[in-house]
Amino acid sequence: MTDDPHLPPTFDADYETVDPLADDTVTEHHTSMETIVELCKRRGIIFQSSEIYGGLRGAWDYGPLGVALKDNVRNAWRKSMFQLRDDVVPLEASILMNPQVWEASGHVGGFTDPLVECSNCNTRHREDQLETNKKGEVYCPSCGQAGTFGEAKAFNLMFRTFVGPTEDTAAQVWLRPETAQGMFVDFAHVQLTARKKIPFGIGQIGRSFRNEITPRNFIFRVREFEQMEMEFFCKPGTDEEWHAYWIRQRYDWYRNLGLRTDNIRIRPHADDELSHYSKGTVDIEYRFPMGWGEIEGIANRGNFDLTQHAEHSGKDLSYFDQAADERYLPYVIEPAAGVDRIALTFLVDAYRQEEAPTAKGGTETRTVLKLHPEIAPVKVAVLPLSKKDTLTPTAREVNDLLKPHFANVDYDEAGQIGRRYRRQDEVGTPFCVTVDFETVEDDRAVTVRDRDTMTQERIPIEKLVGYLQERFAQPWSPDSA
Amino acid sequence: MTDDPHLPPTFDADYETVDPLADDTVTEHHTSMETIVELCKRRGIIFQSSEIYGGLRGAWDYGPLGVALKDNVRNAWRKSMFQLRDDVVPLEASILMNPQVWEASGHVGGFTDPLVECSNCNTRHREDQLETNKKGEVYCPSCGQAGTFGEAKAFNLMFRTFVGPTEDTAAQVWLRPETAQGMFVDFAHVQLTARKKIPFGIGQIGRSFRNEITPRNFIFRVREFEQMEMEFFCKPGTDEEWHAYWIRQRYDWYRNLGLRTDNIRIRPHADDELSHYSKGTVDIEYRFPMGWGEIEGIANRGNFDLTQHAEHSGKDLSYFDQAADERYLPYVIEPAAGVDRIALTFLVDAYRQEEAPTAKGGTETRTVLKLHPEIAPVKVAVLPLSKKDTLTPTAREVNDLLKPHFANVDYDEAGQIGRRYRRQDEVGTPFCVTVDFETVEDDRAVTVRDRDTMTQERIPIEKLVGYLQERFAQPWSPDSA
Repeated sequence: MTDDPHLPPTFDADYETVDPLADDTVTEHHTSMETIVELCKRRGIIFQSSEIYGGLRGAWDYGPLGVALKDNVRNAWRKSMFQLRDDVVPLEASILMNPQVWEASGHVGGFTDPLVECSNCNTRHREDQLETNKKGEVYCPSCGQAGTFGEAKAFNLMFRTFVGPTEDTAAQVWLRPETAQGMFVDFAHVQLTARKKIPFGIGQIGRSFRNEITPRNFIFRVREFEQMEMEFFCKPGTDEEWHAYWIRQRYDWYRNLGLRTDNIRIRPHADDELSHYSKGTVDIEYRFPMGWGEIEGIANRGNFDLTQHAEHSGKDLSYFDQAADERYLPYVIEPAAGVDRIALTFLVDAYRQEEAPTAKGGTETRTVLKLHPEIAPVKVAVLPLSKKDTLTPTAREVNDLLKPHFANVDYDEAGQIGRRYRRQDEVGTPFCVTVDFETVEDDRAVTVRDRDTMTQERIPIEKLVGYLQERFAQPWSPDSA
Repeated sequence: MTDDPHLPPTFDADYETVDPLADDTVTEHHTSMETIVELCKRRGIIFQSSEIYGGLRGAWDYGPLGVALKDNVRNAWRKSMFQLRDDVVPLEASILMNPQVWEASGHVGGFTDPLVECSNCNTRHREDQLETNKKGEVYCPSCGQAGTFGEAKAFNLMFRTFVGPTEDTAAQVWLRPETAQGMFVDFAHVQLTARKKIPFGIGQIGRSFRNEITPRNFIFRVREFEQMEMEFFCKPGTDEEWHAYWIRQRYDWYRNLGLRTDNIRIRPHADDELSHYSKGTVDIEYRFPMGWGEIEGIANRGNFDLTQHAEHSGKDLSYFDQAADERYLPYVIEPAAGVDRIALTFLVDAYRQEEAPTAKGGTETRTVLKLHPEIAPVKVAVLPLSKKDTLTPTAREVNDLLKPHFANVDYDEAGQIGRRYRRQDEVGTPFCVTVDFETVEDDRAVTVRDRDTMTQERIPIEKLVGYLQERFAQPWSPDSA
């Protein structure tokens, strides 16, 4: 443990990084994106926005199980970032901000994709994604004509809209393309009013918007998405240490929530890949069916953003450090993740198809999401063995008993019990509680079935809440499942 | 209790409604909006968006305490709507939806304000908010000239933007002006995949946007805001009963969270005030310093929305009711509230200035937010009596002990203990835990101070978590505070 309050606690940097130019290709995978998309649609987890009107490209809706999944992701992040720490505080900035924010941040000038227009069909395309035909000519993916493209123009990825009753440029504002700028713009006010000393962080969960030319891979690259970003302000010269610290913290967060470590890697950005603001960035990448892809970026932004905002606003955003008796612009370490992408990662990672015994002594294939119990959308399912009226009052009683204690308790009485178990397995419900005739007529106990082992245990109703709370408090890992 | 599964449980409709034309004026009030705005800014609860650039009208940011306050409001709503019920499920739809949604809903055609333009200074104003000068002439509030206005034009309150790489009308989309349409558009898919039978509801929390001409009254009327809306789908003919049921449920929610009942009233809309979609609406109104204002609307929307979407999409959105052996378009009851407005309501309602005894035997004025403990942003503050090093390890130990159990524990060691109590009172922290020399040297106990009564109790550290959990579980009302 160091005595300097500016430095992070000492820790063992046991993570390994891969080469910046490591291959993204994934040849074999335990599932496919189509399988996950089908499951999400069929169970109402995630599906196209405004589907009855043919959807809107790059926009997705989350149904009941999807909301529960996202809530769990957000709550796990909030708990580790805010609740359990003293040095990071939350913020919720508005999506519409003063347009000068995006001048200062560099987004108005530089947040662009290179687009070319086809002179034959007038569609626009990203120049870096065009392909050649058999003759080696670049062709238009819309009309198929070759040689129809002129020079590329910069296309800004920010959505713009107009505030106030006239559509002139004075009232033009942008939908934020990232939540990060809220933390920079509000830095001085939050530091002062929350009475925080450096080092400390400000974090935010919220929607951001990017007018992607080609949204793709389900919820991986979309036009509307939800970010979880944190800006950690530290003393210049301590930024490398804090960068290493936050890489470790964030890697551990994924690992502790049960992602299989074989499917995660840490990849530093190559020099020519770094953003204009970054002194150094590593990505935490996940092994998706379509290839390795970023699930979180952890950047050392230096003092780029505060410098820009101080210049553009004319405000002094420097901080007087009493312990160091020194005034400076803090450096910033930024762990930036996306709720949607993390939700997708958990779904892909947890998806399994395996042989399971049937009641008749045979086997059948079951689909099961082996999600960490903290991430599972439904926590407990209450299943009366049959729909007989004699079971309903007790099953309802158990349901009502559990609901105040667990975030999402599902009551399901429709169909064969085996089918209901499969339905719960498929969405990763850790525990099924079955109320049977013995419960009512004899022992006032229920059967608790474990999702992973499929073993069953008889638990008295009066001990059920405590039993389940204890099971949820136990550590969980995909290897033991 | 009725046996018909289509009807709500019987309940005592003990609420009273006021006359639809009841006076909005509030002459005397225990606080003023300026006082609340000042407190919010000074403590970093709520402040202007992008303040260092002069702000953006109608957009506000929430600092650490504001986020905690909003989280508590959202969680209380989620708990009562989703967690404790079996018949309402959550949804999160995208903010950008297929533009046909807003054609069908009537927003493209009808969601307008009447605007007039001043021929002298070219500013636009809401015709219904213009005033006359001493000569009785309508004048321009910007330049002061009279008689400069022509005929009013309809101005749509939806923000528009453009999706995809060309700004033509085909790609024009709107920022949603309400979350409700997500529930209507996704109704059939959610009903099917969540396997819900009517009656059941779908609810959503999320941002909405309205290009208000004159945002005003702090966070009461803004351009970007957060809604909590629920659409409850029921059998035609049971809608009046469900309307009455949800009015009672929602009124109780406010009452149970400690709003003073003298400050709430239920006002039915007059016939000429009803929206085009509504068969009947009541507002729950709060007594703000600037007058009585809506904090929640509970509307009987009939089958207006599903009819519109079925017609515009060409999809069959009807529901086959097995119990009734009948196919129909469900009717909809909608409780619609705003997170920001409810946060403001709690702040206003809880604000008190009262005489409190000082350590020296005199009295002083203290500002205290008597918030329901479930709504209070900080749950517990840990305060070492002095900054002496001998107290720090134990105070930190108590802090670490409490953090996993309570959503927001504040550690504050700066300044006189009396000043720290006042600082916590001012933001409504229900319990302050003081670590003193006796704690360390003698009894391993701490002093727990109650915000409302200012009484102090000595509690052993090992019993502290249980003691506080019990205190939080006790009912709280503003009358006993």
